[in-house]
Amino acid sequence: MILLDGKKTSLEIRQELKEKIKAYMAKGHRAPGLAVILVGDDPASQVYVRNKEKACADVGIVSKSFRLSADISQQELESLIQKLNKESEIDGILLQLPLPKGLDSQRCLELISPDKDVDGFHPQNVGKLMLGLPGFRSCTPAGIMTLLQRYNLDPAGKKAVVIGRSNIVGKPLALLLLQANATVTVCHSRTKDLTKEVLDADFVFAAVGRAKFVKADMVKPGAVIVDVGINRTEQGLVGDCDFEALKEKALAITPVPGGVGPMTIAQLLVNTFGAYKQHLDL
Amino acid sequence: MILLDGKKTSLEIRQELKEKIKAYMAKGHRAPGLAVILVGDDPASQVYVRNKEKACADVGIVSKSFRLSADISQQELESLIQKLNKESEIDGILLQLPLPKGLDSQRCLELISPDKDVDGFHPQNVGKLMLGLPGFRSCTPAGIMTLLQRYNLDPAGKKAVVIGRSNIVGKPLALLLLQANATVTVCHSRTKDLTKEVLDADFVFAAVGRAKFVKADMVKPGAVIVDVGINRTEQGLVGDCDFEALKEKALAITPVPGGVGPMTIAQLLVNTFGAYKQHLDL
Repeated sequence: MILLDGKKTSLEIRQELKEKIKAYMAKGHRAPGLAVILVGDDPASQVYVRNKEKACADVGIVSKSFRLSADISQQELESLIQKLNKESEIDGILLQLPLPKGLDSQRCLELISPDKDVDGFHPQNVGKLMLGLPGFRSCTPAGIMTLLQRYNLDPAGKKAVVIGRSNIVGKPLALLLLQANATVTVCHSRTKDLTKEVLDADFVFAAVGRAKFVKADMVKPGAVIVDVGINRTEQGLVGDCDFEALKEKALAITPVPGGVGPMTIAQLLVNTFGAYKQHLDL
Repeated sequence: MILLDGKKTSLEIRQELKEKIKAYMAKGHRAPGLAVILVGDDPASQVYVRNKEKACADVGIVSKSFRLSADISQQELESLIQKLNKESEIDGILLQLPLPKGLDSQRCLELISPDKDVDGFHPQNVGKLMLGLPGFRSCTPAGIMTLLQRYNLDPAGKKAVVIGRSNIVGKPLALLLLQANATVTVCHSRTKDLTKEVLDADFVFAAVGRAKFVKADMVKPGAVIVDVGINRTEQGLVGDCDFEALKEKALAITPVPGGVGPMTIAQLLVNTFGAYKQHLDL
């Protein structure tokens, strides 16, 4: 069994990025800049933001954080985004979700300039992903594709099943897999015979948000299993897949934690560096 | 066997639209306007454009046609689009594809103002389709969904297989089916066992562009079959499905011609009317 080590792979990517950024700065360019907006005091969001800031610092991206009170108005938040859209040293703008009640996150996401939308959430970047045009890709699905590439696991001509149809994982992942020439099935809560679908798959992607949802008897021997779930349970962080039961059966599998999570952050850094290069060329 | 009569259904939709437009105009509003741009003299494109103009006239949409020589420059074409973006009596802009060689169609499509993009090809509208947000839907997939609705054929909880993964049919159709709660598989040229996939489907959508590609032994009895293909053969216009062989087996099937084609045009009119209503509210 191959352990798809997202932590190790993301460190490799970060090391590569660090050197590229160093080379740019050695030529006299400014450092890449990422603005991080955190509204309110959701503890999980605070952890995520801190991890992203650390990852930025590590590779040489200057992160500029905006920690705002939960009672900020929609208009104030929008003004901040518009100001950051114009700032020339800011390459990417990250709005940590979810926003506190009363704030319209979709409106805010659409306000972020598409060329600074390093999360890949703006409809224009989502559209470009579907169309196969250059643009920022949503970090989790793009990070997963990179992880598979680094382990030489090519889904071309294979059967891939994505469980979950969210806007940030399931749907964009299905489109990226399709572009990589997989035959793709998307399953969800309304799927009638989930086990039958998953049993058929060479590649299984679980993004359901339910602890140990995918069991050993649902997966065919030799499948590649990517677990996108992070569920907080009494036993600690647990994925959507029953790792212990699946690891003997799978050709390859991601652990939780240390699988998809670190790849998502690495992709954010890659996207920010991409925005930086584009902005330098302007 | 239910014949999914796109011609009849599209006439019903056109009749409904005609009355809605009449009611708006009776209140003193201007007529809806559609600009149609045709570059060069591709015979098929000329037929398509003429059909769209006729359909517009029939429901009370004023169509304004721009027939341009194949040697027009990219810049001239872009200037025309920009001019039409600003014209207040133009609600929708349709750029008939394909463009002659040397012209960059993607650049032109992205230049059309998203609020006049009645073909639903702008990345912003494509992204909104994926995200399930309001926006213009690509006409062929949206027309197909309407046809199924009008015949009370609900794909929710059913297994749908889309053959073909184009940007204008396969991928957006898969996303609309997913939104309608189907379990969706997208197959294409790299799919290993196409027959196995299709045999499993309650709903089959063929958009491959190969005459009579889907044969009777590929489809399970009682399936709903939607044929998106239009292939010019010595026997005349033929779909991607072997209609004669399939009609006895299927619960419902679209004919070619008279199935999906007229629904595509009806959806263009619906989209143009939607743009018109939005513009009146501005």
